[in-house]
Amino acid sequence: MAIILLRNDGQTGAWKEAFRKADPGLRVLEAGEDTDSGEILMAAVWKHPRGSLRQYPNLKGVHGLGAGVDFILEDPDLPTDIPVMRVVDPYLAADMAEFVLAQVMAHLKNLMAYKTQQAAVQWQPKPYRRIPEVTVGIMGLGKLGLAVSKLLLAAGFSVVGWTRESRPETRFPVFAGEGERGAFLKQAQVLVCLLPLTPETRGILNQGLLRELPAGAYLINVARGPLLVEPDLLRVLDEGILSGACLDVFEVEPLPESHPFWGHPLVHMTPHVASVSNPDSVVFQIVENYYRLLQGQPLKNRVSRHRGY
Amino acid sequence: MAIILLRNDGQTGAWKEAFRKADPGLRVLEAGEDTDSGEILMAAVWKHPRGSLRQYPNLKGVHGLGAGVDFILEDPDLPTDIPVMRVVDPYLAADMAEFVLAQVMAHLKNLMAYKTQQAAVQWQPKPYRRIPEVTVGIMGLGKLGLAVSKLLLAAGFSVVGWTRESRPETRFPVFAGEGERGAFLKQAQVLVCLLPLTPETRGILNQGLLRELPAGAYLINVARGPLLVEPDLLRVLDEGILSGACLDVFEVEPLPESHPFWGHPLVHMTPHVASVSNPDSVVFQIVENYYRLLQGQPLKNRVSRHRGY
Repeated sequence: MAIILLRNDGQTGAWKEAFRKADPGLRVLEAGEDTDSGEILMAAVWKHPRGSLRQYPNLKGVHGLGAGVDFILEDPDLPTDIPVMRVVDPYLAADMAEFVLAQVMAHLKNLMAYKTQQAAVQWQPKPYRRIPEVTVGIMGLGKLGLAVSKLLLAAGFSVVGWTRESRPETRFPVFAGEGERGAFLKQAQVLVCLLPLTPETRGILNQGLLRELPAGAYLINVARGPLLVEPDLLRVLDEGILSGACLDVFEVEPLPESHPFWGHPLVHMTPHVASVSNPDSVVFQIVENYYRLLQGQPLKNRVSRHRGY
Repeated sequence: MAIILLRNDGQTGAWKEAFRKADPGLRVLEAGEDTDSGEILMAAVWKHPRGSLRQYPNLKGVHGLGAGVDFILEDPDLPTDIPVMRVVDPYLAADMAEFVLAQVMAHLKNLMAYKTQQAAVQWQPKPYRRIPEVTVGIMGLGKLGLAVSKLLLAAGFSVVGWTRESRPETRFPVFAGEGERGAFLKQAQVLVCLLPLTPETRGILNQGLLRELPAGAYLINVARGPLLVEPDLLRVLDEGILSGACLDVFEVEPLPESHPFWGHPLVHMTPHVASVSNPDSVVFQIVENYYRLLQGQPLKNRVSRHRGY
């Protein structure tokens, strides 16, 4: 009985160590380690190599190592009859909230433009904007979206939210579904995307949607790269419809060197760092779900394959 | 009876227009306009040209057009027997608070480093820091320092303060005077300087003080350039004692093109934009003080020449 760790980035060392500290008796292996593939009962994965799940005939469950599970549900080798679980890291939501606050504030105060001016030895004051003047629209009101809204409200921003289906109880106006999307978008001077990536949301940030934002709006995508149609963003930026965009996620990561985002003066990139799962803080959830899986007990943070998150 | 507007930046147009809207009957002139210099009763100034105050024999008061009045008190041509007033703009404090929040957040999340990496086409994640882990030390607890503390506390930061003399009532620990400065500095992982510039504070941010900060501390100077000994900052940065600095103010502004700050990878510069007086929001205070001056009534926001602010 063992867990197999599968990641596309080779960073299994910190995870193995976190599992060892959390439960020294638990067998946690990585690909390539000598083992009987039949003893693997759960896979703990982050953008695992395609085909890798096929190797374990007795797999009883797949656990994501982060909040997003799109790459698991998209895997044609995912057995149809086993549960998929995800991590709900208390830090993940708080970290996301802090990152979005940092990016919204940097936008209001032109910090990225000043960094570029510094490199060019230019002293050129620009007008700034004030927190009470700005409404931030948050697409997606799951745990991350709600944490972001809470911190932005504490800082003094006006917040509006949009959700595809459910309408959580909030201290700010929430719009739901296709029918109310336009009313939401026209208020969002800064649009923060925190939707899960599902077949329904893929490409949702397209030029049609972006053109519904108020003139000079600013886009922050911190969710998943494929939510955004990247050429559409370039088009609306170049037409002057948006004042800029901050992107932490991309269709292909790392972003290829030839991509036009690198050199675009209105695109501010970060290398998928908004919120990074900390092995030590989330490994206990995975261990607990492993034992629940073995004992046939209800699982925590089980993903709905229908909803996609 | 008239007010003379004196600025070193030629931006008198917006101010004249603001005065005209606030009180159409008031005579407000700028240097070079044809007038009898004897009719000027008040000067409204921002870094006025040296020698300019000498030209008005009937001057009854000098009003700063911003929060800082150091340049007025340092003027050898300032008559000794007339009052100096300053502007207390409600936005000035709020704007300063927002700017400091923006800079602290940008520091925690490495945003400046990522902007530089983007320019170099580098995808290189770096570890970030979290709000609850960081203590911000604020030097100077006047209206600006208190506004900054309030916003940082709302965002979740721990705050400590230091003041040269008075100790305001606060929700956070405050240290006062030389004797308690060391205890304050050793807690300040981010040091925000909001002291007024006086003979006592000039050069207070020197290498002796900076070496008392915790290892890897970050400096934010948003008050006045001459508070900082610029070569001392370069020295402690190059020794690795500080992790970086964000400077909005400089000994000489605009910063000369040959200055080493421009190209320093750990110095993040902005062109004196943290908080800019808005003519429309502060002109009423100046008009009111003008009439109080003429009628011999108590003035608002009068500066103590002894304290220097």
